[in-house]
Amino acid sequence: MNKVKVENLLINFKTLEKFKRFREYGNQELSMLEDLQNNLIENNSESPFYGVYIGENLIARMSLYRIKEKYDNYFDPPQDYLALWKLEVLPDYQGKGYGKLMVDYAKSFNLPIKTSPRINSQGFWEKMGFQKAQYDLERDLGENPLIWLPQGVQEKAALPNHDDE
Amino acid sequence: MNKVKVENLLINFKTLEKFKRFREYGNQELSMLEDLQNNLIENNSESPFYGVYIGENLIARMSLYRIKEKYDNYFDPPQDYLALWKLEVLPDYQGKGYGKLMVDYAKSFNLPIKTSPRINSQGFWEKMGFQKAQYDLERDLGENPLIWLPQGVQEKAALPNHDDE
Repeated sequence: MNKVKVENLLINFKTLEKFKRFREYGNQELSMLEDLQNNLIENNSESPFYGVYIGENLIARMSLYRIKEKYDNYFDPPQDYLALWKLEVLPDYQGKGYGKLMVDYAKSFNLPIKTSPRINSQGFWEKMGFQKAQYDLERDLGENPLIWLPQGVQEKAALPNHDDE
Repeated sequence: MNKVKVENLLINFKTLEKFKRFREYGNQELSMLEDLQNNLIENNSESPFYGVYIGENLIARMSLYRIKEKYDNYFDPPQDYLALWKLEVLPDYQGKGYGKLMVDYAKSFNLPIKTSPRINSQGFWEKMGFQKAQYDLERDLGENPLIWLPQGVQEKAALPNHDDE
């Protein structure tokens, strides 16, 4: 993995074409494509996507978005944190450390991280130092949130059962 | 499907054992099991789960949870709506109308519904009258939300691009 690095991906037709090779291509990508086609966003706009190129091939990607402290329901003390989603390495490149490279990049911001992977990848996330968040129905609904805590940060204590009103 | 009906599922060890047959068994179920074991919730407590029994077999289930109007970011006018997740029919019973039976039950509350299915089931949801919500990065992150609108309800108009601060 000499010289391989994680980079922020700009939104342009070339990037969006490469995204089609990833399994979790969905509303988000289609929305970016439409916005580009309709000139609602400029060519080479910033995106929440980060990825790894090997030559001309985008072989891994993820989305990272900074959630503001006032919306933090996971960490103690409440603070800005990163939501991470769509971490995906193309099949031919799996098992070579690219997933870890991406997660290490996310950790380098030294903010707590929350993810809620769509596939059963518990083992990977545990190796990356993530732990299951305590499930809270009203907050998590259908999610299985996993969190990573930088030094000095704790998980928010569970609330006692309460009525919302 | 004579006499088959959707019923609310109570939390007890028997129900939780049946849940293990469903693919989307996760934090939510484990958390309910722990709460039951630790007497944090009573046997036969209410749950957000609904399901269909055929004899002794639980063959389909879903979660439904009512989100309060003040948290509604999807509908116009803003109102209480239902979040639907973990809709799943066991493989041997698929293609027989049980999925539709469950969705019709959710619709019978006559509230808007939001779901964000984990698997690629776009065709099913379109047949059920759901439509893709317009993707909003800050709201939806890694989700692909689909919504169902009862008469007189519209999707909330997209916000122009804005800075949060």
